[in-house]
Amino acid sequence: MRQFVLVAHDGPTTPAFSLDALPSAGRMDLLARCVTSSLLLSHGIRTDVRMHLVLGGEYTVTVEGDAVEQLHPDERSTAALIRTALEHREEAVGRMAVESSPGVSILRGGLSAILAEIAETGSVITLHENGTAASETEPPADPIFVLSDHTEFTPADESTLDAYTNHRLAVGPESLHADQTITVAHNWLDTDGFSEY
Amino acid sequence: MRQFVLVAHDGPTTPAFSLDALPSAGRMDLLARCVTSSLLLSHGIRTDVRMHLVLGGEYTVTVEGDAVEQLHPDERSTAALIRTALEHREEAVGRMAVESSPGVSILRGGLSAILAEIAETGSVITLHENGTAASETEPPADPIFVLSDHTEFTPADESTLDAYTNHRLAVGPESLHADQTITVAHNWLDTDGFSEY
Repeated sequence: MRQFVLVAHDGPTTPAFSLDALPSAGRMDLLARCVTSSLLLSHGIRTDVRMHLVLGGEYTVTVEGDAVEQLHPDERSTAALIRTALEHREEAVGRMAVESSPGVSILRGGLSAILAEIAETGSVITLHENGTAASETEPPADPIFVLSDHTEFTPADESTLDAYTNHRLAVGPESLHADQTITVAHNWLDTDGFSEY
Repeated sequence: MRQFVLVAHDGPTTPAFSLDALPSAGRMDLLARCVTSSLLLSHGIRTDVRMHLVLGGEYTVTVEGDAVEQLHPDERSTAALIRTALEHREEAVGRMAVESSPGVSILRGGLSAILAEIAETGSVITLHENGTAASETEPPADPIFVLSDHTEFTPADESTLDAYTNHRLAVGPESLHADQTITVAHNWLDTDGFSEY
């Protein structure tokens, strides 16, 4: 399984945002693209993927490739799925996640909570422009890629990550948007061992 | 210079579409993402890129990295730039392109018109899932990547392409969305020759 954890520092923590103004809703445009670039292929879905969106350090919305329904490639409909999850945030109590729509759930807690939950299911790797070159690195079996939104990891994020891994991986020499980084990370795994497609 | 030509078979040929319903406007959500994945880095723009959107075979909108202004990462604002270009479509007469906003212009004509215009400035390469593996191929100096939207190339597209190239390149074993393909193609060029970033 491949997992992505996007730390959305400015991500909304309530559903009080407009689908007509996604960039001003904590960069919900970017967050929606991160969900779709994690999960969608041209004519299908990556069923072996889970995407975790850490919103403002307070909630984590998880989208599961093998269960999600009505996930479309555009930002607006994907943002609506996330907004629906946020409508159920009060039902997420303690460490219990609540399913808001098929394959989409919300959990109370941020980066440390979600890593405590999933770290044992794979290898935690930070995607960061100041990392070792992916092209020189052997892909792990069950990567859990952690990456940040349009802002840098905070010192608190860094301490949390230090508890799991010091491994930073760069997918290329250019500084990419988070959704572009996810697309390239998938391709790195997809092409591993292939010389003909 | 890197150039991308996206053949948007269902792309709108008039500005009569709503920014609230991009998927039903000839998949304008996808077209907008193709523009941004061609041109945007995390904190900047790829000034050495030109992106050509062939809309419904009738018009081609070109966005130039070294001149475009007000290009943001979200679908809606990018779709608005394209819609503005379509508002100027009647002014595009013969083979003269009309600038609709800084760095954005519209030309009357489809794939054969734009290739006739630009083919001499680089190497025409078709991005297609049934191509030779990019990982086994040396990147050309000035690639002109041609790719299709969510539909296949038509027989007419194929004859046009045959006049320029028979070279099909696949960026990986999975069938990706056009915007994802563009992101991976950039990374293929970005990482060429790099073992450390």
